[in-house]
Formats: sequence, C-alpha cells, structure tokens
Amino acid sequence: MREVGIIGVGMIKMGKFPDRMLSSMGREAVLLAMKDAGVQREDIEAAYSGTLHGGSLLGQRIFKDLGMTGMPINNMENACSSGSSALREGWIGVGSGLYDMVIAVGSEKLSALGGGTLPLEREDLEVSQGMVMPALYAMRARRYMSDFNGTKEHLAKVVVKSRKNAAMNPLAQFTQPTTVEEVLNSRMIADPITLFQCCPTGDGAGAAVLCSMEKARKYTRHPILVKASVLVSGKFEPGFRDMTTPEITVRASKLAYEMAGLGSKDIDVAEVHDAFSIAELLYYEALGFCGRGEATQLLDEGATNIDGRIPVNPSGGLISKGHPVGATGLAQLAEIIWQLRGQAGPRQVKNAKVGMTHCTGGGIYGLDHGACSIHILSR
Amino acid sequence: MREVGIIGVGMIKMGKFPDRMLSSMGREAVLLAMKDAGVQREDIEAAYSGTLHGGSLLGQRIFKDLGMTGMPINNMENACSSGSSALREGWIGVGSGLYDMVIAVGSEKLSALGGGTLPLEREDLEVSQGMVMPALYAMRARRYMSDFNGTKEHLAKVVVKSRKNAAMNPLAQFTQPTTVEEVLNSRMIADPITLFQCCPTGDGAGAAVLCSMEKARKYTRHPILVKASVLVSGKFEPGFRDMTTPEITVRASKLAYEMAGLGSKDIDVAEVHDAFSIAELLYYEALGFCGRGEATQLLDEGATNIDGRIPVNPSGGLISKGHPVGATGLAQLAEIIWQLRGQAGPRQVKNAKVGMTHCTGGGIYGLDHGACSIHILSR
Repeated sequence: MREVGIIGVGMIKMGKFPDRMLSSMGREAVLLAMKDAGVQREDIEAAYSGTLHGGSLLGQRIFKDLGMTGMPINNMENACSSGSSALREGWIGVGSGLYDMVIAVGSEKLSALGGGTLPLEREDLEVSQGMVMPALYAMRARRYMSDFNGTKEHLAKVVVKSRKNAAMNPLAQFTQPTTVEEVLNSRMIADPITLFQCCPTGDGAGAAVLCSMEKARKYTRHPILVKASVLVSGKFEPGFRDMTTPEITVRASKLAYEMAGLGSKDIDVAEVHDAFSIAELLYYEALGFCGRGEATQLLDEGATNIDGRIPVNPSGGLISKGHPVGATGLAQLAEIIWQLRGQAGPRQVKNAKVGMTHCTGGGIYGLDHGACSIHILSR
Repeated sequence: MREVGIIGVGMIKMGKFPDRMLSSMGREAVLLAMKDAGVQREDIEAAYSGTLHGGSLLGQRIFKDLGMTGMPINNMENACSSGSSALREGWIGVGSGLYDMVIAVGSEKLSALGGGTLPLEREDLEVSQGMVMPALYAMRARRYMSDFNGTKEHLAKVVVKSRKNAAMNPLAQFTQPTTVEEVLNSRMIADPITLFQCCPTGDGAGAAVLCSMEKARKYTRHPILVKASVLVSGKFEPGFRDMTTPEITVRASKLAYEMAGLGSKDIDVAEVHDAFSIAELLYYEALGFCGRGEATQLLDEGATNIDGRIPVNPSGGLISKGHPVGATGLAQLAEIIWQLRGQAGPRQVKNAKVGMTHCTGGGIYGLDHGACSIHILSR
C-alpha cells in the first residue's frame, strides 16, 4: 500500500438539532473539509459514509445535493467506530491505488431517537438484562476504584479537564467550565457515574479528504500522513474478563504502534473515546500512556492537560465536545489534524508532531466491544 | 492493485425463517464458503459484512460464534447493493496488499419486518407520495410496452423462465414452474405488475472468500479471477428522465467492461437484478445484451434461456431464487462461480468462461438508484 495523507478536515458544531436533516449536517461537514483541502467536487473520486442510526444510503443523500453524484459511495457501520471505519476504508481505497482522492464523512442525529442509551444488540443476553452502557461503565469504575485506590473525585476531575478544554472549543456541545462538586452533585445515573460523567446525546458530522501523499503536496504544503490505521473486533470470550483492562484497545494500540513504527511515548496528543469518565482513565493505561493502576496519578499530575506530557482530549472529548456516534471518529480526526497543523487556537498543544485518535464501542457480551479503531497521524 | 480471486462461495437456501437468528444464517453461509475454499478460520484476515436491515455490528455477531474474533470487521450498507458493496471493499482490501485473504458476507431477514415494500428514503418526496418500488416498475413497464410494443405476456414470460430455472436450483425460494396464464392471473400489485412478477419477501445469506491470485492457487486449481468490480451511485438529476433506460446500470456496465477489457458479447452468463419482471428486460438493454427496444425479441428468441446465446439468471434470479436484500450480491456471485466452475448441475450453462453479477437499487428521487454494482468474473 502506498502512503496516504489527510489534506482537509471539517466538522460542524455538535449539539441537538432536531429540526435539521441529518444529510444536511453531513453535507456541511463535507463542504468544510473540501474547502479546508482546497479541492473541487470533481477531484473527489469516491466517498465513504459512516453512521450508526442514519438509515439507508446516507452517503448518497449527503452527496446528491452537492452534485457529487455518480461516484462510488459506500456506507459503513461499526457502532462507535462507524466514522473511523469509513475513514479507514477510504485509507485502503487510496492506499490501494484505485483512487487518488476520496472523502470520508461521519454523521449522526441522536436527537431524533429520544433520550437514554441504546442497547445495540437484541441478541445479547447481558444487554437485555440491563447491562446498558452506563451500568457497564459504573461496574468498571467501582472495580477500578477498589483495585487502585481511585476515588469518585478522580472521575469528576476527568470531566473538569474535559469541560475546561471544551470551553476553548467553539464546536463543542458543552462549553461551560465545571467543578468537581458540580460533577458529583449532578444526577446519579449508575453509581458512581453521575450525569456529567456521561457523554451527551447529540447530533453532528465530520469529514476528511484523503489523498495519496504523491498528490497531496499539490494541494497543501502540510499534508498529514496516516502512519497507522488499525481496526480490530472484540475477542468476545465468555467467562472471566478483566473489567478494568479494555483488551480490545490494548490490542489495537499495539498493532497501531507497530504499523507506525512508534511507541506510546511518541504520541504528542491524543483524542480518546471517553464515553464515560472512567473510560478515559482506563484508556490512559490501555494505550500505554502510563502503567497499570497509574491513571489517577497521571491525571493528578496534570500530564494529560493541554500543557502536560501527554495531552488527552484537548477538544473536550466525547464528554464535552459530544458523541454523535457516527461523527465521532472524524471529529476526533479533525481535532488531531488541527493540532498537528498548529491551528487549534487557545487549546493548541505546543509543537505537536504525532497524534492519535481512538474509537471503541458497540458492546457484545457486555464487556467486549465490537470494534476498536486507532489512527496515528504525523506531520 | 494486484489481482484478486474468488476461491470459495456459499449460500443458504432462501425462504422465510422467522424463528432463525439472522446472524446464524450469515454464519452458515460463511462456513459453506470457507469449506468450499478449503480454508481455516485462521486464514481469514478480515471480514466485510453487508446488510440493509440487519442492525448494528451484524458482522461481529456473525463471526463471534465461529471464534473468528479479533480481526478487522466492517459492516456495509448500500441498499440492494449491500452485499456486493461488501464484496467490493473486500476486493479492494486484498487488491491493496493489506490482506491476502478476506471474507465477504451478506445477510438479510426480511421476514422480521413484515410484508410490503419499504420506502427507503424518509427524506424523499416521491417515495412519500407513493412512488414505492412496485409503482415505479409498473410505470416503467407501461412506458416500455407503449414505446416498444411489449405486451403483458412478455412480462409474464420473464417469470416463466425464472421459475423454470429455479426449479433446478434447490437453494431458490420458489421452485415450482409456472405458466404465462398463472403469472397474469396472480394478484395485481401495480398494474401491469402482478404478484408473481415481484421478487418475494425472504431471508437468506451468502458469502465468498477472496484471496490474492498469487496465493489462490495454493488453495484451488480453479480460482475465479475478479476481472472488474465497479460501484457507482446515481446521478439524481431532477426533471425529465428516460424511464426505460436505467442510466446507472448503463454507466456501471460501461465502466465494468472497460475495467475487464471485455465487451457485452464476451459475457457467457449473467445474474441480473430482476426485482420485477420488467427490470430484467430493461437490463438486457442496459447491459448491452441487445439493442434498444429489442429486449422482448431477445426473450422471445430464447437467447436468455440457459441454452441461449446469453443466459440470464440461471439461478432463478431475484424473482424466484429470492431477494433478501443484503444477501443478493453474494448469492449472485455464488451462482456465477458455480457456473464458471461447471458445478451448476442441471442448470449449467455450457462452457461458461466469463460471468457477470449486477445489483442495483435504493431509490432516491424515485427513478434514480442509489447504488449499482457490477462484477465481471472469469475462469
């Protein structure tokens, strides 16, 4: 496979837009990414669209009113990794030499579905018995706190950092700073996870233009290279599973570091899948940013702050920027591209050269995720 | 891109299986294809799953109970081309050199959805005003009959041929022969389209193992080469459109012939998307099997019979074999692979060397299809 670069990204402000058509959100993200890349619709040879709940032929619905018709369009679904899976197939498409330039788009309108969490698997006994996402993460939090002397204040501090970063991100769903007290006093969802510790229901869209590195420099002096693009599925092993080690993320990150020829110490900035407060702490360890049981210490030291050793979720992450499922992978990518270009404004991580995006989700057998995708990017 | 071959295919008998889990149908097709290829689960590096209504993470649900876990799995949706789009991404994955061997699977359980046709586009004004599929094809039939002196008997003869072939296909949903009178006397759905002229509601699954041609000969002496794999989307042009020329199929077939370095005269056997009787006639012309307005003559001459010049739908096609949407592309592929290997039993097309599969569907703006995919295969 030949090298593939990202030459343009875009995302719309996340929030609840019940009166807006989903396809129009995807369309706006597409236009932003194409404008950012400085490309015309004729330059795009194929499109990959990711969504979980967006319905049939969403890609076609997005592109038809742009006059971007006739080209190959394929629609992807991989739960929380739907957008990043679309991105990855686009990477394969360009890497194969079949296309020189493609666009990946992710879009979701959760506000159309009403509130609450969605049990994805009707065939799944554990979900049908109540093991929905907040319950699962509450169990993980309790176990982690018990094994490693974590406190509920640690969980709250993840949210405080998230909101602080999001306050500098005009595209985030929640932009008001918060405090540990406020987080802990918000409504209890699944003890110890309070409302503020859950990513919100919301709508959004993100997009990226992918181009062969040979051609990329015709469009920009600063293409961002895709150093690794990894997708794995869960092991789905019944019986005992370690609740505080997200095995799928450990495995995906090892493959990603290997593909990139890099280690966890080389990552300058990361957008990780903090669907719940505890998740971010677990991923610090799973991605190798710190050792086992050291996540709360990493947080306490401020190492994952924007001015820390390994800034995590400078965008505000899923908890504050928002988590419109299919859009998330491409919104994460947009943030990392902006960071690597030095275009992240007040939330800029200094001299970021290598970035990571991490999506994981879609519970099957409760604990095991259906899909995890990791991208490593470098300028 | 390097050359990619098909080394194994499988499909389950189509029908209505309301008590069976969709994932188990996909699983059975996967096992059949792997057995046919003579490969073990460890040989498969990635999976592509196609479905329209199968829900989130269907691929993961199919593969987990086979212990085929951990690998990249991505789920694809492209309306009637969902299965063939999964096949095509698998072709790109192997062609790129990223994988040596992958599996594509398509599965659908329409019996779970109740009867009737499904308006796919809630955003689509034409569909919401009643332009569902049978109505659309009825209009096309009327226009074709008016322009080219076709008769309702011609429409019925498509079904008679279809049932005659399906009677030799134990995997078909309908295996009883029929007559012109019986077809015309079946319940009127949308004049002149009667019940027997519509593909049925049903369930099914198909799968294929794709392998680089370099490696393919390690597994079989007779890998079938993918000569062309084309996916296009509709032009979605409002205003006047020629109702009897399926533009998307014309365009896709031109690209496919070009990619394969072949012409329509080189096709020895084809599985085309006969969702309604009139559709098969329109595709004879759109695929270049005959000239404009000559489809009824081609049918009358018996040229599309199994022993004719250009046999079409020896499997029974969508009308008789069945059309569980996401499964169709891979079921078509299975038939063509069997034909090219000389394994099609009583419905074998003599000395078939080059075959074609053709999927198209997903109405947006009524007349224009969302996606059309064509594969050309050769032994």
